[in-house]
Amino acid sequence: MSIRIGILGYGNLGRGVEKAVNVCDDMELVGVFSRRDPGSVKVDSGAAVYHVDSLPEMTDKIDVLIICGGSATDLPEMTPKYAKLFNVIDSFDTHANIPVHFANVDAAAKEAGKIGIISCGWDPGMFSLNRLYAHSVLPGGKDYTFWGRGVSQGHSDAIRRIDGVKDARQYTVPVPEALDSVRAGENPELTTRQKHTRVCYVVAEEGADQDKIRNEIVTMPNYFADYDTTVYFITEEEMKLEHSGLPHGGSVIYSGTTGGTKNADGTTSELNTHVIEYSLKLDSNPEFTGSVLTAYARAAFRMNQNGESGAKTVFDIAPALISPLSGDEIRAHML
Amino acid sequence: MSIRIGILGYGNLGRGVEKAVNVCDDMELVGVFSRRDPGSVKVDSGAAVYHVDSLPEMTDKIDVLIICGGSATDLPEMTPKYAKLFNVIDSFDTHANIPVHFANVDAAAKEAGKIGIISCGWDPGMFSLNRLYAHSVLPGGKDYTFWGRGVSQGHSDAIRRIDGVKDARQYTVPVPEALDSVRAGENPELTTRQKHTRVCYVVAEEGADQDKIRNEIVTMPNYFADYDTTVYFITEEEMKLEHSGLPHGGSVIYSGTTGGTKNADGTTSELNTHVIEYSLKLDSNPEFTGSVLTAYARAAFRMNQNGESGAKTVFDIAPALISPLSGDEIRAHML
Repeated sequence: MSIRIGILGYGNLGRGVEKAVNVCDDMELVGVFSRRDPGSVKVDSGAAVYHVDSLPEMTDKIDVLIICGGSATDLPEMTPKYAKLFNVIDSFDTHANIPVHFANVDAAAKEAGKIGIISCGWDPGMFSLNRLYAHSVLPGGKDYTFWGRGVSQGHSDAIRRIDGVKDARQYTVPVPEALDSVRAGENPELTTRQKHTRVCYVVAEEGADQDKIRNEIVTMPNYFADYDTTVYFITEEEMKLEHSGLPHGGSVIYSGTTGGTKNADGTTSELNTHVIEYSLKLDSNPEFTGSVLTAYARAAFRMNQNGESGAKTVFDIAPALISPLSGDEIRAHML
Repeated sequence: MSIRIGILGYGNLGRGVEKAVNVCDDMELVGVFSRRDPGSVKVDSGAAVYHVDSLPEMTDKIDVLIICGGSATDLPEMTPKYAKLFNVIDSFDTHANIPVHFANVDAAAKEAGKIGIISCGWDPGMFSLNRLYAHSVLPGGKDYTFWGRGVSQGHSDAIRRIDGVKDARQYTVPVPEALDSVRAGENPELTTRQKHTRVCYVVAEEGADQDKIRNEIVTMPNYFADYDTTVYFITEEEMKLEHSGLPHGGSVIYSGTTGGTKNADGTTSELNTHVIEYSLKLDSNPEFTGSVLTAYARAAFRMNQNGESGAKTVFDIAPALISPLSGDEIRAHML
């Protein structure tokens, strides 16, 4: 029996989920749900397209709804709403609002007897897992997260909202010296500016004031003001040729110690340092994120089949639940 | 209420567990259990020492027994035996025998209503987790595991068993070209010899035939015959000064793709490559392994408190269960 998947929202992430579902033998893509006129949405793989308003009539046709919306306004409303009807999963990534979002989804999902997985992807998601595993195994150490080199869609969008900007692409780049120091287990104190730089490629409208645009970018609070930011003005053709991909990645590096403890005889044991690093080099951020959501959709289905309900994160989900293979198979081949 | 821990076996790994337990605020070390005369065992932290025969009388004093024995003969017998009395955890690492060991521990633990976690540490353990997560997120890719540079205790012991050898230390070293190719996502086919080299430091008995020892090492089946092996003869003083530590580590590297799928209009979507790497640089292999066992001992206790029983591996254990922090705390700080 296949796990029947619905995709809500068909932007870059929805397309990534579509590709991931279509390579999973144990899944079936029921359709894509959109707020747009279904006739205007062309789905790559040819799956059916429905208007989002038809979702309430399809509760017996979909096992897990993968919600591909934005964290600012879409997901805080959509995920609790649809957790009342389906097992759901989202990639909510506004860190400060995770507790509220978790509580809202938890209440809705528990009432409906469904599973609602939130904040899934690579950060939050795979990176979060690596922070948790490392902190748990080596208590008292320090974690560092570096992003990039990669395109930040949020930062690119922020630049596009500036008057006179036609298109923009922003790359987040880790500072090599900071990476080296962390990898060496030196546990440096690093400011925001010392960890990452931001590089922006901007296509300006004809006749726009480039100095004004540059100044608006580098002084933009939250997004750029705390970073060393470089702005390059390029043509539309250059943008299309050299910046059409959405690569991303980064590293979670954790440095901790063992030993250095007091012995009964008054001596101190040798202090040993351990460095744990998890890194991703992704050709396509939305396709990798979509793949993570799809694997965890499998877990949502299984946990619900198992009688569980409520909000979950990657922390609450046993790794075996995201694999299509049996316990015997994973123990034989991956343990 | 503290989790009360017993340690069975007091070699390098037992000492590593001792240090790890002693930095966990939610744990208490009840004592070390040994097959030796308790009076002859000096425990670093001053914890109590008992003879292994007293374990059956202490079922109400210990929540989790961490079994620090060898995989060849100790663990296949000990882990099922003590799973009848305690929640237990071991670091069983004979890959081919994992299914049998799992079945034996499962039967014993289920009958007793206890949890028995097997094959925990970094490989099997943290490396296994990373193989599973990567395969699940990006089906159809390929995983590579490189070990080192680090001391292999099994290989060092094998050399020490050769006539005329007084002491030996064997380092496993990944081949840099192989690492580079895998990291570049080239998915190479690699023979055993192409992945790792082995470097041996040997103290020979006075008058021993060094050429004969060298030949016995490099031709030893399973251990060295399939590798390029270098043997250096050194003095006892050099061994003590330069090779007294037990560093280790390595990397699990997974390369997979998304896209490349057929579209409804007959075109093929862009193929994107993603490389996932998890790496460890450990100053002390037994102390890090002991730290992993200790974190998962926490999970064994909690799962058993929750009414679960039977054999488990890292695959079956939700990450949150190994953290001393609450769900609210880990969501707020690590997600």
